Amino acid sequence: MANTPKAPKNFHHTVPEGDERERLVCRDCGFIAYENPRIIAGSVVEHDGKILLCKRAIFPQKGKWTIPAGFLEVGESPDEGAAREAYEEAMAHIEIRDLLAVYSVRHISQVHMMYRATLKSPDFAPGIESQEVGLFAWDDIPWDELAFPSVHWVLGHYREAQGKSGFAPFTNPV
Amino acid sequence: MANTPKAPKNFHHTVPEGDERERLVCRDCGFIAYENPRIIAGSVVEHDGKILLCKRAIFPQKGKWTIPAGFLEVGESPDEGAAREAYEEAMAHIEIRDLLAVYSVRHISQVHMMYRATLKSPDFAPGIESQEVGLFAWDDIPWDELAFPSVHWVLGHYREAQGKSGFAPFTNPV
Ligand SMILES: [Zn+2]
Ligand SMILES: [Zn+2]
Repeated sequence: MANTPKAPKNFHHTVPEGDERERLVCRDCGFIAYENPRIIAGSVVEHDGKILLCKRAIFPQKGKWTIPAGFLEVGESPDEGAAREAYEEAMAHIEIRDLLAVYSVRHISQVHMMYRATLKSPDFAPGIESQEVGLFAWDDIPWDELAFPSVHWVLGHYREAQGKSGFAPFTNPV
Repeated sequence: MANTPKAPKNFHHTVPEGDERERLVCRDCGFIAYENPRIIAGSVVEHDGKILLCKRAIFPQKGKWTIPAGFLEVGESPDEGAAREAYEEAMAHIEIRDLLAVYSVRHISQVHMMYRATLKSPDFAPGIESQEVGLFAWDDIPWDELAFPSVHWVLGHYREAQGKSGFAPFTNPV
């Protein structure tokens, strides 16, 4: 997960003609840089009853643990994005099972689409964004060192969904 | 649903340092205008066994029929976006029930999140993006005049999901 890029100085916030909202508009040429909610695609990957976690090598939350997840890229479906992230962050080939949860993180305008997945083979290793990658039994998960609230949420929902299939995806805890 | 904005002339496609993909980068200041997949939030709105459809007053597909749907805005959750679109396009106050389908339209980099909903009151009227709004019994749906493939898909999936709850959201038909 990376940060949202900052706009250059010649952009300012204004309401374009025919629009109802403030947009980021270039003072020079009128280009509108739409700020859209972004999709984070990720997965809870299980192997032999254990869960794959990555220790982050990059900011934010460097040194904290996360599931493989990151920004969906142009031309990808969310499940493809989740599989790519598992490969990039954990060098793992995964099989997507189903959509576990859809979270909305409004203040940073992200929608998280989290899948359940399994390892296609028991091979994994740290990708360039990870310091360390490991399989954790439930009781060994480093609960106090998780990188993001949504990692907490999704692990809890994963546990709740165990043994179930064909369920409605979980949403933000209340 | 609107079009994706065009980039101004001083932007070019190049791979920024430390990235693995081509991005749209400003030649002058290095600003990276990330092109992200965008979320369309929409709903199949039912009232008295009929479905709410809007005849589009805008391009693309002007004059064709659609469910209320449009780009998710910054700071919205997908269900909030779907409710806002129902109000903007059909002046309808809706109650979101559940997530009916998640479609991926890769070639235009869209992810469609479609909900089931009901009218809170039997009041609706064309919003500025609609020429006409109406409630249609299944057999009266203008099947040959639907605006987008995903409208076909979601109506079919709506029908399939009737009487069900707690199901996994439908995905692209194969
Ligand atoms: Zn400009
Ligand atoms: Zn610039």
